[in-house]
Amino acid sequence: MTTVKLWTDDEAAADPRVAAVFADIRATRKSDFVNNIWRALANQPALLERTWAGVKDVMIAPGALDPLTKELIYIAISTANNCGYCAHSHTAAARAKGMTGQQHAELMSVIALAASTNAIATAMQVPTDAQFLVSA
Amino acid sequence: MTTVKLWTDDEAAADPRVAAVFADIRATRKSDFVNNIWRALANQPALLERTWAGVKDVMIAPGALDPLTKELIYIAISTANNCGYCAHSHTAAARAKGMTGQQHAELMSVIALAASTNAIATAMQVPTDAQFLVSA
Amino acid sequence: MTTVKLWTDDEAAADPRVAAVFADIRATRKSDFVNNIWRALANQPALLERTWAGVKDVMIAPGALDPLTKELIYIAISTANNCGYCAHSHTAAARAKGMTGQQHAELMSVIALAASTNAIATAMQVPTDAQFLVSA
Amino acid sequence: MTTVKLWTDDEAAADPRVAAVFADIRATRKSDFVNNIWRALANQPALLERTWAGVKDVMIAPGALDPLTKELIYIAISTANNCGYCAHSHTAAARAKGMTGQQHAELMSVIALAASTNAIATAMQVPTDAQFLVSA
Amino acid sequence: MTTVKLWTDDEAAADPRVAAVFADIRATRKSDFVNNIWRALANQPALLERTWAGVKDVMIAPGALDPLTKELIYIAISTANNCGYCAHSHTAAARAKGMTGQQHAELMSVIALAASTNAIATAMQVPTDAQFLVSA
Amino acid sequence: MTTVKLWTDDEAAADPRVAAVFADIRATRKSDFVNNIWRALANQPALLERTWAGVKDVMIAPGALDPLTKELIYIAISTANNCGYCAHSHTAAARAKGMTGQQHAELMSVIALAASTNAIATAMQVPTDAQFLVSA
Repeated sequence: MTTVKLWTDDEAAADPRVAAVFADIRATRKSDFVNNIWRALANQPALLERTWAGVKDVMIAPGALDPLTKELIYIAISTANNCGYCAHSHTAAARAKGMTGQQHAELMSVIALAASTNAIATAMQVPTDAQFLVSA
Repeated sequence: MTTVKLWTDDEAAADPRVAAVFADIRATRKSDFVNNIWRALANQPALLERTWAGVKDVMIAPGALDPLTKELIYIAISTANNCGYCAHSHTAAARAKGMTGQQHAELMSVIALAASTNAIATAMQVPTDAQFLVSA
Repeated sequence: MTTVKLWTDDEAAADPRVAAVFADIRATRKSDFVNNIWRALANQPALLERTWAGVKDVMIAPGALDPLTKELIYIAISTANNCGYCAHSHTAAARAKGMTGQQHAELMSVIALAASTNAIATAMQVPTDAQFLVSA
Repeated sequence: MTTVKLWTDDEAAADPRVAAVFADIRATRKSDFVNNIWRALANQPALLERTWAGVKDVMIAPGALDPLTKELIYIAISTANNCGYCAHSHTAAARAKGMTGQQHAELMSVIALAASTNAIATAMQVPTDAQFLVSA
Repeated sequence: MTTVKLWTDDEAAADPRVAAVFADIRATRKSDFVNNIWRALANQPALLERTWAGVKDVMIAPGALDPLTKELIYIAISTANNCGYCAHSHTAAARAKGMTGQQHAELMSVIALAASTNAIATAMQVPTDAQFLVSA
Repeated sequence: MTTVKLWTDDEAAADPRVAAVFADIRATRKSDFVNNIWRALANQPALLERTWAGVKDVMIAPGALDPLTKELIYIAISTANNCGYCAHSHTAAARAKGMTGQQHAELMSVIALAASTNAIATAMQVPTDAQFLVSA
């Protein structure tokens, strides 16, 4: 189904750069499971390394937004960008980080509302109010 | 710049349905400011009423997600849907609800990361892992 | 395949809010068939109720646009938003409302043409002609 | 503002292929006004010719969908594809073809509703019902 | 799975316009294989003819961009437009035209980078620098 | 017009991380000009550093795709993602790297064609041919 090969564990073990990322994914997540996007990215080690470094910096390192909030934002973007794989993987990740059914319901409601007001503002080409502009 | 007329306060006052929504916006927000999307929506009172009711239910009524989190999600969706008006209005709203510069920086980082992994998953047509599926 | 559970009829019958919407869908459409989007929305009764109310107001209540025209518009939006489920369900709905093969062929042609001119206008960043602007 | 030069009438007159298309636009529309997208497309005569031929075939030649319906569909696609130029030009075209305020209001409502249900179906990854599939 | 019937070779042979396009596809590509998008387009012969003529003019006729470069661009657009069918068919086409694994890896990297900077520019609503504008 | 402050050179000079990136941009490009997206990104130094590192790795370091080809791909993605800023900046970059008028014309043609076939494949939900699948 993919446009590239999905690397098996044996294939990953044979490439030092891929092996190192897979090992770090497993150590960081404390789980043996390496999901398909990493097996697809293994075809391009530099992009694999850069993407995993980005995920660690943005989603895993502590910051001003808590991990669950970041997953909810990720689901929202993935939905608007229409990435089915990402909707699945980040909904699962959000549940693993404690997302309740009620939180998911509200996320769905914000997504549906924003999609409709986004469309209205675009269809009507509403000009930005001066009050919303950031002064220099 | 719009594809429809933006209603002035005088015009809004002359239509009972529009006047009622504008009054409720002002009372709910405790501010005289009615931003342009509502002045554009005034051209279609039924859609104006339905949209405002949606905003009150989803964004203003208390729930399982706090108001700032919902604004961050709204910014994320508006960005992915490429709505400039909405990016401006909801970034302003998030700041009004206490978003810090660091939180905004992390939101931008999640948006940038998700956009890139969404694109990778789509370009490679990565199949969803069985582990992510919801059982019936 | 979904990120949420699809509710069975038995599960729906056990939740009064969901049961009421399902009953209204069946009565309004004069059919026992409740399609999957409603079974997914059943996870969030408030969004289920709001969405069904929107569908009744916009797509079913009589108005200035006939029902088939509204389905054609719905297919066009669903295509541009890349919603496979929606393309399927609204193409089926349009056929049920009398869409002919020739009408579908012309719809496809408008969709293909608009996609290409939309892309050109964006790639070239064509400025809006003054003649197209709505005066205040 | 564009990424390409917008051709003046004098420049267009000096290139036979561009001059021929501009003349046909004016004759077909019975108006001297040539809007900016054609002045941008003049930079690539083959694409200019192909695009104008497509517009004549799809939007102007008589068919199974009436001209106003096709403009409404064009606005819907342009909105979902987020083309501001196209939203402006086709809303103006729809008005010129008789679109009433009430029809525009209902178009906006279908656009807003479809955007929200498209987003829900994507966020929930709702599987297509077997009833919607076309048999071979 | 489609919203329209996919035409078999026997069905195509019975319609002169469809038969002519299928024959030209086979002759031009020197292959008996006619892929599914043409079998779907067969439902609307005018769109089938116009689309195939466009593919011949743009992708097959010699020009200033070599065939492989055009396929890489096609993959990039198809990814950003989220067309799974197109990602698959044009990745296969690019491989058939000699795309190496390293070229594909770099294409993926450009797609991922552009997606992230596109999102940042949109989220921050960055104004275009005067230096980038085309003078009249 | 932005949702964030655009940093001046004086402000950039006062923050060591921002100053270092701006200096590297100038040294790498052999130009004093720092365009607006970097002045916007200066609000989040970590994202500024990561984004600039990505641009250097992907767009500037030598590889299997030549620099102009990568700019053409970037324009294509930016168009499909509807980023006006990016369309402007990368069209200017492509011209600086030698893009001819004829190459730009062909790029526009590929973008227009791909947009239309992407839309058709989505509207018709065309299933991927088995011949296009990558074997495990």
